[in-house]
Amino acid sequence: MPGTKPVPDIVVGRLPIYLRALTRLLEEGQQVVASKELAKRLGISSAQIRKDLSHFGEFGKQGKGYEVAYLRDQLRSILHADRTWNMALIGAGDLGHAIAHYMEFEKEGFRIVCVFDNNPQKIGRRLGKFEILDMAALPQKVREQEIKLAVVAVPAEAAQSVVDELVRAGVKAILNYAPATVVVPPNVHVQSIEPVMYLQRMTYYL
Amino acid sequence: MPGTKPVPDIVVGRLPIYLRALTRLLEEGQQVVASKELAKRLGISSAQIRKDLSHFGEFGKQGKGYEVAYLRDQLRSILHADRTWNMALIGAGDLGHAIAHYMEFEKEGFRIVCVFDNNPQKIGRRLGKFEILDMAALPQKVREQEIKLAVVAVPAEAAQSVVDELVRAGVKAILNYAPATVVVPPNVHVQSIEPVMYLQRMTYYL
Repeated sequence: MPGTKPVPDIVVGRLPIYLRALTRLLEEGQQVVASKELAKRLGISSAQIRKDLSHFGEFGKQGKGYEVAYLRDQLRSILHADRTWNMALIGAGDLGHAIAHYMEFEKEGFRIVCVFDNNPQKIGRRLGKFEILDMAALPQKVREQEIKLAVVAVPAEAAQSVVDELVRAGVKAILNYAPATVVVPPNVHVQSIEPVMYLQRMTYYL
Repeated sequence: MPGTKPVPDIVVGRLPIYLRALTRLLEEGQQVVASKELAKRLGISSAQIRKDLSHFGEFGKQGKGYEVAYLRDQLRSILHADRTWNMALIGAGDLGHAIAHYMEFEKEGFRIVCVFDNNPQKIGRRLGKFEILDMAALPQKVREQEIKLAVVAVPAEAAQSVVDELVRAGVKAILNYAPATVVVPPNVHVQSIEPVMYLQRMTYYL
């Protein structure tokens, strides 16, 4: 039954994959989709898809498949992806620049609203439409703009201390681009973008 | 016993995390590390770390911990991270620019050796030190430069067809930055960089 016990995080991690596929189907004008078709598109078994979705309710009709728009709206609601989230970006180097200009975030409701750096040479300068702010202003901005999410794009050596500052300021979820493992308290979430690790995970097999 | 059956992919996926931590410890001048200390740094249990490493041999001495340099070298060898890999970059847009300038790849032995695009306006122009090449030249370049890896930084709509071209050209491992799920044959590996999905996976809990 939905809602009676916590959904495994691995299942939560697959919901955005389903959401993106449904959004694509909707753009293509498809109104109904069978779990088998979704399975083929995603390389995930149809049994797995049905089981994952069953954690959240009864979305499909036996033999009829899922209504694309309805299931998409439900997943958006479950993931809290049906609203706009303000984000702070920490680090105004090359990587920070690329992230500030990455259009997918805004498109999906993740809006960078301020950019921070601790380099006095950068503070006060501009990064695109943002003025680069001193890290000291972080707690105030987090309060004022109700920021729950932050993107970390600082060098590896600085990552943990920046994450600690974000946690102290009240940020609840951190997307970490620094090539470093960072530790957060249990009430804070962190996900790391690890391109080198992904490559190494593949070269193992080559 | 090491080598007798395939190591689960989830274990393989954690090896790069251990490798990076060991490299950091080595830089810090530490010669021996207990699994407990690694565990604390990484937020992975020490039992898990010992079990993961036991797939590949006996690296630690009971009660003495792991020799950092030795274990690091072993992991580099296991992951084939002790050599340089030539990579093709597909897509010379903003994202492609950022990737071409991302220093971590070269630092870790992943060297972008050529850049492709299918936009006639871009072909022949430069991206940093590279001349942007026509996709039609891909198969030849892959052969000449013994390219096994590619990085995909094209729009979502183009991702699958680009991946298909890479597979046909003989590329064996693909790091996909396009916000699209791509499917590859069983003998080809793909890992996707999914920042929006990582954010959605976290906002579920907020």
